[in-house]
Parts: sequence; C-alpha cells; structure tokens
Amino acid sequence: MRILGVDCGSERTGFGVIESDGRSHRLLDAGVIKTSPKSPLSERLLLIASGLRAVIVAHAPEAAAVEAVFHAVNAQTALKLAHVRGVALLVLAEAGLSVGEYSPLEIKTSVVGYGRAEKEQVQMMVKSLLKLDEIIKSQDASDALAAAICHANQVRYQEAIRK
Amino acid sequence: MRILGVDCGSERTGFGVIESDGRSHRLLDAGVIKTSPKSPLSERLLLIASGLRAVIVAHAPEAAAVEAVFHAVNAQTALKLAHVRGVALLVLAEAGLSVGEYSPLEIKTSVVGYGRAEKEQVQMMVKSLLKLDEIIKSQDASDALAAAICHANQVRYQEAIRK
Repeated sequence: MRILGVDCGSERTGFGVIESDGRSHRLLDAGVIKTSPKSPLSERLLLIASGLRAVIVAHAPEAAAVEAVFHAVNAQTALKLAHVRGVALLVLAEAGLSVGEYSPLEIKTSVVGYGRAEKEQVQMMVKSLLKLDEIIKSQDASDALAAAICHANQVRYQEAIRK
Repeated sequence: MRILGVDCGSERTGFGVIESDGRSHRLLDAGVIKTSPKSPLSERLLLIASGLRAVIVAHAPEAAAVEAVFHAVNAQTALKLAHVRGVALLVLAEAGLSVGEYSPLEIKTSVVGYGRAEKEQVQMMVKSLLKLDEIIKSQDASDALAAAICHANQVRYQEAIRK
C-alpha cells in the first residue's frame, strides 16, 4: 500500500510517501513545501495545494495520514495551521484518498513506542524503520513519514482484528 | 464591479453576490452551502469547495470578501471554522479573485454604521441597501452579502483616496 503522510504548517508543510506491506516500509519520497511568511495566506494556501497535488500525481498514493489538530501553545498559530489543514484535507479528498487522522501521541506511540518521545527519537526511528543510511534532516518531512508509518501500522492492526 | 461575499462555517457557509458601482448595490445571488455535521470534515470541505466554485462559475465575480478569523467563544469551533476558511481562501485564490478580509467590526461599521450592531440590524441594512422587498432570511447569506457590501464601500473609499 502506498501512503502519503502530511505534516501541515503554514510556513513548512512536510510530506512523505512510503510503500508498505504493513510490516516493512520503503521510502518513496519526502520533502517540504515551503512558503514565505511575507506572502498573503491565500497565496501560501495555493502553493501548498499545488505542491500536494504534484506529489499525489507523481506517486499515486492509495491512502493518506494527517496529524489531528491540536491546540498549539499559540492560538494564532493553531488557527493558521487549521487553514492549511483544511486545504490539505480538501486536496486529499479531491484525490479520492482515504485519510487517517492521528494525534501526535498516537503517531509517536506507533512509531517510537512511547507517546512522549522527543522529535529526534522520531527522526531516528523513521530512519531505522525505512532502513535509511541517514536520518531525514527536515523534521517536517520526517514527521510526515512518521504519520504515514503510523497509518500503515494502523491498517495492519485493523486487518489483523478483522481476521 | 461584481463581488462575492463568503461567510464561512463548517455547517453553513453563506454566500452572496452583488453588482456594485460603489454607491448603489444590486443583489445577484445569495444562498447557503449546508453540510451535515455527521459527515467527515473532509467531505464537508469538498462540498463547500464545489459549492463555492459553482457560484464563481455562475457569476464570474471580480473580487471577494471574507470575514477575518476571530477567536470564537469555543476554541474547537474556531479551529473548524479555520479549516473551512482555508478552503474558501484557496478556492477564491484559484479563481484569481482579489480577496478583502474584514473583521465583524469592520463589516458592521461599514454596513450599519455601528460596529456592535445586532445581527438583525445587519439583515435590515442589507435589505435596505440592496433595495429588496424582504430581508434575506438566512443570516449566513445575509452576512455574506454584508461582507460583499463592505468590500464595495472599501473599494470606493480606496479609489476616492487615490483621486
């Protein structure tokens, strides 16, 4: 199964695509859609939408995973993030992808085995699970891959229950 | 100038299209895109996006007006609203519309002349300014028209300053 993970942010939206059979995962692509904080929000949303659409066209994922909204320390930041998240959910839905939404706690528990893991631990586990030589340096891209891996684990778990 | 006003909401997104020369305004269309609270957010965002796109295709507005984000009483409500607003801003930007963003205070001041006007006063003024026989019963549609009228006033004001 090909899964696209998205880590929403108004300045940096990470994405990661993996191929997974539920047990082993393989990296297909990862990167960050960057937007300038000086640009109007609508221009930034345009960039994020077209960036995500390009990734979907390039890799034709069957499913997607996105972090659930959380209340950021800063309410203004949470609101901006929610604008981007709305656009991401729209683009994924327009592409007909089933979307899993996971809290940071769920993603960390699934990937590291510990819900309060540090960001660096997530990066290390993403590197290890995808059998990479180096960590994915961009934390946004690495977090997106972590969401995709979490979704792969979740799908395998759901299938195991069904059987 | 043809202006599309949008009043974002996750259950009810109001829209209103006016033709305005800056002094007098004429109603072209108004309505509400309703979504079921039982549907997943991504489906609701799909509906809202396609609804707004249909209005844009039907009326070919040159500009748009949207309420600025405000902190709703309920943080969860504000976050949902921001998802819808992100989608609305994306759709308007994709259509190449210039978008004016106004606070509820600015809209009420512009339309009623009083920033703390009641919702019913806004409805009455929208009816009066558009020379309608009756008020627009849907408050969401009426609020969207108020945003469009506010934008028309703003454009006239900006042009007057330039001259």
